[in-house]
Amino acid sequence: MKVSIIGATGYSGLELIRLIQQHSSVDIATLHSFSNQTNLLSNLYPHLKNLEASPLEKINPKDIIEKSETVFLATPSGISKDIALPYIDAGLNVIDLSGDFRLKNSQLYEKWYEKSAPLENYLMRAEYGLAEFRENKESTFIANPGCYATATLLGLAPLVKKQLIEPTSIIVDAKSGISGAGKVPSTSTHFTETNENMTLYKMNSHQHIPEIMQQLTKWDESIPAIQFSTSLIPITRGIFTTIYVRPKKPIAWEELHKLYESTYENAPFVRIQKENVYPTVKQVTASNYCDIGLAYNEITNVITIVSVIDNLVKGAAGQAIQNLNIMANFAENDGLGFIPVYP
Amino acid sequence: MKVSIIGATGYSGLELIRLIQQHSSVDIATLHSFSNQTNLLSNLYPHLKNLEASPLEKINPKDIIEKSETVFLATPSGISKDIALPYIDAGLNVIDLSGDFRLKNSQLYEKWYEKSAPLENYLMRAEYGLAEFRENKESTFIANPGCYATATLLGLAPLVKKQLIEPTSIIVDAKSGISGAGKVPSTSTHFTETNENMTLYKMNSHQHIPEIMQQLTKWDESIPAIQFSTSLIPITRGIFTTIYVRPKKPIAWEELHKLYESTYENAPFVRIQKENVYPTVKQVTASNYCDIGLAYNEITNVITIVSVIDNLVKGAAGQAIQNLNIMANFAENDGLGFIPVYP
Amino acid sequence: MKVSIIGATGYSGLELIRLIQQHSSVDIATLHSFSNQTNLLSNLYPHLKNLEASPLEKINPKDIIEKSETVFLATPSGISKDIALPYIDAGLNVIDLSGDFRLKNSQLYEKWYEKSAPLENYLMRAEYGLAEFRENKESTFIANPGCYATATLLGLAPLVKKQLIEPTSIIVDAKSGISGAGKVPSTSTHFTETNENMTLYKMNSHQHIPEIMQQLTKWDESIPAIQFSTSLIPITRGIFTTIYVRPKKPIAWEELHKLYESTYENAPFVRIQKENVYPTVKQVTASNYCDIGLAYNEITNVITIVSVIDNLVKGAAGQAIQNLNIMANFAENDGLGFIPVYP
Amino acid sequence: MKVSIIGATGYSGLELIRLIQQHSSVDIATLHSFSNQTNLLSNLYPHLKNLEASPLEKINPKDIIEKSETVFLATPSGISKDIALPYIDAGLNVIDLSGDFRLKNSQLYEKWYEKSAPLENYLMRAEYGLAEFRENKESTFIANPGCYATATLLGLAPLVKKQLIEPTSIIVDAKSGISGAGKVPSTSTHFTETNENMTLYKMNSHQHIPEIMQQLTKWDESIPAIQFSTSLIPITRGIFTTIYVRPKKPIAWEELHKLYESTYENAPFVRIQKENVYPTVKQVTASNYCDIGLAYNEITNVITIVSVIDNLVKGAAGQAIQNLNIMANFAENDGLGFIPVYP
Repeated sequence: MKVSIIGATGYSGLELIRLIQQHSSVDIATLHSFSNQTNLLSNLYPHLKNLEASPLEKINPKDIIEKSETVFLATPSGISKDIALPYIDAGLNVIDLSGDFRLKNSQLYEKWYEKSAPLENYLMRAEYGLAEFRENKESTFIANPGCYATATLLGLAPLVKKQLIEPTSIIVDAKSGISGAGKVPSTSTHFTETNENMTLYKMNSHQHIPEIMQQLTKWDESIPAIQFSTSLIPITRGIFTTIYVRPKKPIAWEELHKLYESTYENAPFVRIQKENVYPTVKQVTASNYCDIGLAYNEITNVITIVSVIDNLVKGAAGQAIQNLNIMANFAENDGLGFIPVYP
Repeated sequence: MKVSIIGATGYSGLELIRLIQQHSSVDIATLHSFSNQTNLLSNLYPHLKNLEASPLEKINPKDIIEKSETVFLATPSGISKDIALPYIDAGLNVIDLSGDFRLKNSQLYEKWYEKSAPLENYLMRAEYGLAEFRENKESTFIANPGCYATATLLGLAPLVKKQLIEPTSIIVDAKSGISGAGKVPSTSTHFTETNENMTLYKMNSHQHIPEIMQQLTKWDESIPAIQFSTSLIPITRGIFTTIYVRPKKPIAWEELHKLYESTYENAPFVRIQKENVYPTVKQVTASNYCDIGLAYNEITNVITIVSVIDNLVKGAAGQAIQNLNIMANFAENDGLGFIPVYP
Repeated sequence: MKVSIIGATGYSGLELIRLIQQHSSVDIATLHSFSNQTNLLSNLYPHLKNLEASPLEKINPKDIIEKSETVFLATPSGISKDIALPYIDAGLNVIDLSGDFRLKNSQLYEKWYEKSAPLENYLMRAEYGLAEFRENKESTFIANPGCYATATLLGLAPLVKKQLIEPTSIIVDAKSGISGAGKVPSTSTHFTETNENMTLYKMNSHQHIPEIMQQLTKWDESIPAIQFSTSLIPITRGIFTTIYVRPKKPIAWEELHKLYESTYENAPFVRIQKENVYPTVKQVTASNYCDIGLAYNEITNVITIVSVIDNLVKGAAGQAIQNLNIMANFAENDGLGFIPVYP
Repeated sequence: MKVSIIGATGYSGLELIRLIQQHSSVDIATLHSFSNQTNLLSNLYPHLKNLEASPLEKINPKDIIEKSETVFLATPSGISKDIALPYIDAGLNVIDLSGDFRLKNSQLYEKWYEKSAPLENYLMRAEYGLAEFRENKESTFIANPGCYATATLLGLAPLVKKQLIEPTSIIVDAKSGISGAGKVPSTSTHFTETNENMTLYKMNSHQHIPEIMQQLTKWDESIPAIQFSTSLIPITRGIFTTIYVRPKKPIAWEELHKLYESTYENAPFVRIQKENVYPTVKQVTASNYCDIGLAYNEITNVITIVSVIDNLVKGAAGQAIQNLNIMANFAENDGLGFIPVYP
């Protein structure tokens, strides 16, 4: 299968290239970037020197439609909603890694993203691509979930789907590595400001909140809201999510564990930890795994869920490939089956 | 005033030396270490090369009592409870940085520390030294609080003292730099395991939980328990505490802010941030400040409190000096009034 | 091909497992560790949770000889020289990642390693496995080079083989990430001591000096010695080598570049950078590449060579696989052809 | 003494504020910044919240001359050469932390800085302020040395002043933390690009080379050039310089050590290490020390000198205060006498 990547010079685009190289059935047809339209990608990124040919080409939809079956949009929010249309119209597989097509409610998009919403009829055709819980596995137009949303939803799904928790009790304390902020330098990603530091940002206002709510309420419509915090920690890759919920009734650890194990028994990338073991963010680095640890505190009646992913893989490019695999009937772990890089 | 430091080669001991050097009225009389009893401290720690004389001496209580008015015990938990006794008996000022004398309930000590408790009559004389809330400012025997406890209690005090929050709602997600684990190498402090990583440890079992509960229930005895998590982040110094509580009634931000400002109006080391500003851990590095940011989410009815300190200063040696200043009627910020090291 | 790994719980052993999983023709038969002989590897290293079976087995040479064609020894120096013998005798492929069989001169081994030398008749059969310059490609007993030696020798080879440089002029300033020190915690690998720090160690005494000299003098016997420094920088993986040499005659950059390009034209893992481009250590992370940048300063008549590798891959496990590929007539990049992990 | 700081929002300016607060005889009169002329400094930098008053004022020379005796210019190169003039004319003490007045040869300035040179008559009045080797201690106009230049010159001075080394043999491999690049974000200071990385930059073209040469040739005019490399390492503060030189005749370590000890016997901030001890960059963090370690390799006849400083203190603001102390007859270590922050 031939694919095109639009947004190839961003971190998610680079990661798509890295992963596709290991895929048995997918090849890159064309690479595109808004910022560099005529260079060799390997001139910008020397780690790619060995890519046989890596020209960045102008974005010519006709040309792309001719050469590719699938288009990955690794573009910032606000861009995809316009440039995706010709590929959808032409019936190509389209996987959008931005937030543009995730929210079914246009008003929510406009409120949280502060941009005009995508066209309704396209929006309706997008499938929210939380890979472990895809509703329509044949959908050819995927809104790939946000990184925080992926870690949070996979951590909450087993309990919420069974409606086992107090609807108002969800508190998510999420921490992200700096690569989540992308490749454009800013004060908040400046080494001297971020190293040896930790910063809470977007208090009660992160744009992944509505997509998490949209999915949670599909599973349990009684959930009215979540408390959700995001902080930056001085690592390059990784999301470490600590989730606190109160079960409606006390629950034994074994029961909790069994619930998670059974929910994910056919999910090759979700790994439930043993008792008293909590995942570290490093144990999934550069891989598509989501590792989940569980604790129940009977004194406070609080379940603590620790859910970790690599934000650029399971939180972006890896899940995008996984979604392609599902859609195209490739093995779900094709291109993704490697061991995390450790240490 | 002449002081002795027992445990001078640990990180808290080193920090005491650094701070005392800047104090206008305190001088070091003797330095002691269990691990090195005959060396020069500057041979072990080259950053101290300029200390005029830094011999490590054997711990001879008689000698220490003769030479010093104050003894700092920067020793691990389980040691202070025995070695502190002669100095208390002799009427010296004793400031213990370990956990040995913090818990008034011996059984709690034995449960959480897994060691036999200190002698009851000594335990009763110890004052829990949360400097901003000292009850007996003339006490000469101080149990200096734990680092997590300091950040958590200063963050919660204004609300809890006024009994404004739902007693069962306290969730503390605390993160610490690696220096909190001390200077003895282990797998959990190994660079290759901790760098680019984040790890949750001591789930529901950190030994600072009981001292936090002891203090909180003094302020509001209706609080039955707290949910308290501790994680390691890859920084050397600093504690970043995110605290979630539900107020009994909705509260305006201005009111919340005013409550904190008034609680701490005479506290030179607690700095309340403006609206929409949350402290970073780096803005207090190497200083005695505790910076606190506040948010209220009216959708979830959750107050988020961000409280940051340098674990070796406000969380250990700095608060110990502050306690000495209070006890000895020195200016509260003598030796501590410097600007944080930034960036 | 079935292989056994002895020393599977060290960082080089773990990296062998990661790489072999991607190899088209190699499978792991058995895993062994001195420190853990009966556990599952995935209990010790949760990133390996998905390895179908990962029992650590006792080291039983007869059993290993029966099950495997190749044995990797990822053991510390001083161990391999004894435990390797049965596999060599049995005619298995043996690839030793330690320093035991690198030095042909037993006295040098005893001087630099402070251990008794390996048996002479085994030592003589070992081939020094600098993969790009293997003399006997059919040798089945490989002494895999040290990480510093690999980066240094690949950086110097083109100039030294042509005897173009002043023999006394070689100065190597090498920097390593902390994983080079292995997984056993120590003060020099403690996070609080290494983070935000840089340390020069083993001044004029690093044990890789004699193997570098042994190889350099094969290429140019007039070289009497090198000046070689090693420092630790606060990164997990990577070696960054800055090499200064004086050419016998001034040399144009283009000529220098052409010399390197031609030397490595058939070497898939050595990538020579363009003019004014110097490799960063991150551009080879988790890959088998050695990237080399070149500069000539006509004012000082000094050539600066920057040579970077990932110490655990090209500097250990990756080169070991590459050596196996050469020996077994697999494609040289089988198991190694992936893109570096960036950022 | 009242002082004004122009460029108060840059890292050197912030460090001046931190150090002056600890000075017994110096107070800040006014603070100025080009980028923010009307804000409170504490709004931009929350670590300064406690500064009693920190308004940033417009740069009005008449006003500054009225209020201050001393002006610190913590401005980028190319700015100081113009804005310094009124304060010099008015007879104020002027300490310029930029490169503008360091080079006596205007043509060299124009070549290396690619800017038009300062006016000759002002340039001639500037004293190069390498504090340990000031020629005119009463000079009131100081060109404060560059950070690399400080570490390099203090490392080389004892040998070069005695003309003990081969003039063509000097090779300096210098590494810097990221704060040396200032506070303006760029790709080369982006966390994801710099963390877990090391990069060589400005190969043979760093603008500190000519000021080093200017000073070295004052001490030994036979030195024709130096080989000088600069690399970025992922730490915030610090310069780690490894210097290789060949002595004209073999030299015993004791003799070398004595030479350095005697050169710096009256220098409170230069600390010579013992045999086989090399300074780490962390042992001088946040302090004005320059720590120097020495080795002689009799096999290669190379002396290795390791010289470390904090680039923002001894390499900028600290040395500026030290120069003021010398000029104003304050104690040389006033405001600078504190212990490094460790760990």
